[in-house]
Amino acid sequence: MTIELYCFGESGNAYKAALALELSGLDWKPVFVDFFAGETRQPGYRADLNALGEVPVLVDGDTVLSQSGVIQDYVSEKSGRFGGRDAAERREILRWVLWDNHKFSSMAGLTRFLMNFLPADKRPAEVIAFNQGRLRIAYGILDAHLDGRDWIVGDRLTNADLSCCGYLYYPELFGFDRAEWPRIDAWLSRISDQPGWKHPYDLMPGNPSDRA
Amino acid sequence: MTIELYCFGESGNAYKAALALELSGLDWKPVFVDFFAGETRQPGYRADLNALGEVPVLVDGDTVLSQSGVIQDYVSEKSGRFGGRDAAERREILRWVLWDNHKFSSMAGLTRFLMNFLPADKRPAEVIAFNQGRLRIAYGILDAHLDGRDWIVGDRLTNADLSCCGYLYYPELFGFDRAEWPRIDAWLSRISDQPGWKHPYDLMPGNPSDRA
Repeated sequence: MTIELYCFGESGNAYKAALALELSGLDWKPVFVDFFAGETRQPGYRADLNALGEVPVLVDGDTVLSQSGVIQDYVSEKSGRFGGRDAAERREILRWVLWDNHKFSSMAGLTRFLMNFLPADKRPAEVIAFNQGRLRIAYGILDAHLDGRDWIVGDRLTNADLSCCGYLYYPELFGFDRAEWPRIDAWLSRISDQPGWKHPYDLMPGNPSDRA
Repeated sequence: MTIELYCFGESGNAYKAALALELSGLDWKPVFVDFFAGETRQPGYRADLNALGEVPVLVDGDTVLSQSGVIQDYVSEKSGRFGGRDAAERREILRWVLWDNHKFSSMAGLTRFLMNFLPADKRPAEVIAFNQGRLRIAYGILDAHLDGRDWIVGDRLTNADLSCCGYLYYPELFGFDRAEWPRIDAWLSRISDQPGWKHPYDLMPGNPSDRA
């Protein structure tokens, strides 16, 4: 049975799940969610897919899962890819997935939304500047961690990488410039050099030009 | 050997780990981290305990763990408490721990910090108001989820509860009022009725009156 991932191209959180599925070799397909038309706020979406009104949602037969980190965990169990080899490695991966959710992708996704997907006259300048300050601390943490390392955890691509890279390939500006962070830049190239890697707008349906 | 938890009273993220340790029955003790004097920014703290410069950090012999969700996972493995009974329940707990990190405690902790622990003339009003709006959505999500449920996942206290409650017992204002959210209010009472429960300022060293 083909796994379905409810997603849309602009969502870096959906990208984390879609990229894990694509690189794992599992049989999957994206199902477009029209977020910008309010689909995730509809009662049916909340009842059937995710009461939290978010993407991504994975549907595999009777299994319905949300939160990108949960979907990555499921993909790892099913494919044997990107998870930890033992309890210590599993926890180190979870550490970075949690940090990503707490301090990194959460702030990057929000700031990109405010700067690009809100009408120009509704963009809260003080919030954007504040968030960008927080993000610079996070870029510094990740860049320093990648000093002397090819991957965030251990010696290969894991869910830690697939989580933390979620928003970093998008063209929309949110205050991140690869040229400023050479180790992040090299690590992003290492990920995009993986066989089968795709850019979020090539991997999932929906992108800003659809609404232009 | 007694488990050590590096923590301080004001940290709701540390409280999540401390409360899991305390209720699990494991032998542990808190080690005070003087966050407000900059201890987590010191090179020694970053080198020996957590390169991310955060609390909590658990030390159990040679094991050093950070991120409250990772520590809770370790406590569950060691004590048999608060984890999932099977893969589906484990993932549902992880779902709420991730949501808490992404949308809830991250925003609550930040907003409480800005409103209470920054000098009055440095508090960014637009950021605080924006965050409070985001938090109201999150309170609504949790309150709705608790309709007809005693606990966030399944029929007992789990790490999902111990994560999401992290900032909700503190006296400092950040825009949360238990009286507005009756299901959250009842659930918080259910948690604090657990044998051995302690308020964060009773469970961990350090509180605002130390600096008054």
